[in-house]
Amino acid sequence: MAYIGTGVEYALHCLLWLVNTDDKRPSSRDLAEIQGVPTAFVAKIFSKLERAGIVEASGGIRGGYSLAKEPEEISVLEVIDAVEGHKPIFDCKEIRGRCALFDSDPPKWSSRGVCGIHAVMLNAEKAMRNELATVTLASLSASVFGKGMPQSFVNDVKIWFSERQMAREDARISGMRSRSKSTKDI
Amino acid sequence: MAYIGTGVEYALHCLLWLVNTDDKRPSSRDLAEIQGVPTAFVAKIFSKLERAGIVEASGGIRGGYSLAKEPEEISVLEVIDAVEGHKPIFDCKEIRGRCALFDSDPPKWSSRGVCGIHAVMLNAEKAMRNELATVTLASLSASVFGKGMPQSFVNDVKIWFSERQMAREDARISGMRSRSKSTKDI
Repeated sequence: MAYIGTGVEYALHCLLWLVNTDDKRPSSRDLAEIQGVPTAFVAKIFSKLERAGIVEASGGIRGGYSLAKEPEEISVLEVIDAVEGHKPIFDCKEIRGRCALFDSDPPKWSSRGVCGIHAVMLNAEKAMRNELATVTLASLSASVFGKGMPQSFVNDVKIWFSERQMAREDARISGMRSRSKSTKDI
Repeated sequence: MAYIGTGVEYALHCLLWLVNTDDKRPSSRDLAEIQGVPTAFVAKIFSKLERAGIVEASGGIRGGYSLAKEPEEISVLEVIDAVEGHKPIFDCKEIRGRCALFDSDPPKWSSRGVCGIHAVMLNAEKAMRNELATVTLASLSASVFGKGMPQSFVNDVKIWFSERQMAREDARISGMRSRSKSTKDI
């Protein structure tokens, strides 16, 4: 698996739809199904995004997700950390202290401060994270949705989300009627 | 496993000894044993470093490894790529074309150019690699060996490498004698 995994890819694609569907509040299932990605996985991703304060769920008839903050305030780095946690690129095994000449009793100087090799990796990780922190959902959306994607397609997706919302509402009302009927039957 | 693995950590620690042991030509076994790391793994790492033109093996009695270039000319990035290959941080699954509305026949615009999300990851990877490319074995050695490591310790390691070289030489001469003796016995 790559360092930045599929969960992040799905998360970002879904979040871009939340940026671009106005007041629509698609469920995680809607977002998964329209994009042809696994529904259970996307549901788990959205629980993480909600815990991290990136999206908020609204219950009720038209329940679904929306962004919890402005897209300008959500960075790609924040989304990665929410979905995968902060994963270091390097796991220093501190081999400085293992030298055979130390006879299993390494002197203090051998493990003082951060190992120089580890420090290089930390700097590289910082450079990568700084870059990811500069991109927000707003700027990413401008490049993805502004990149030759027809407005008619975006409108079609909005309509699809609306229809799913209405279907959920119908199912709920029909469920209420059937429960009420069974109560009368008793 | 972390994105940059233990193989790279071992490689860099070993290479720093090659920078700091003058004309000594330790074998990969010497380098592994003095550092308390697995010998077979380090042998494989050195085959890769040799193929990448970072180290060169000298055969003969005092056989062992030395750097194939000046330490100023070998970057940490080069060592990482030699040991692990160039691993992308992100593996784009091109989910742009999977939209349910496309009915398995995605329009051309949907997969035109690099996906905007992939582009962000490529930029982040580039920032990380640029940082790793700026550090050479020479600069890394200055920070690791200049960081409170006593010169007496470095000298002890040099002596240890010399003793191993001599032991290899003695073993070889003794092997030659014993072969020559058996030949006479025939």
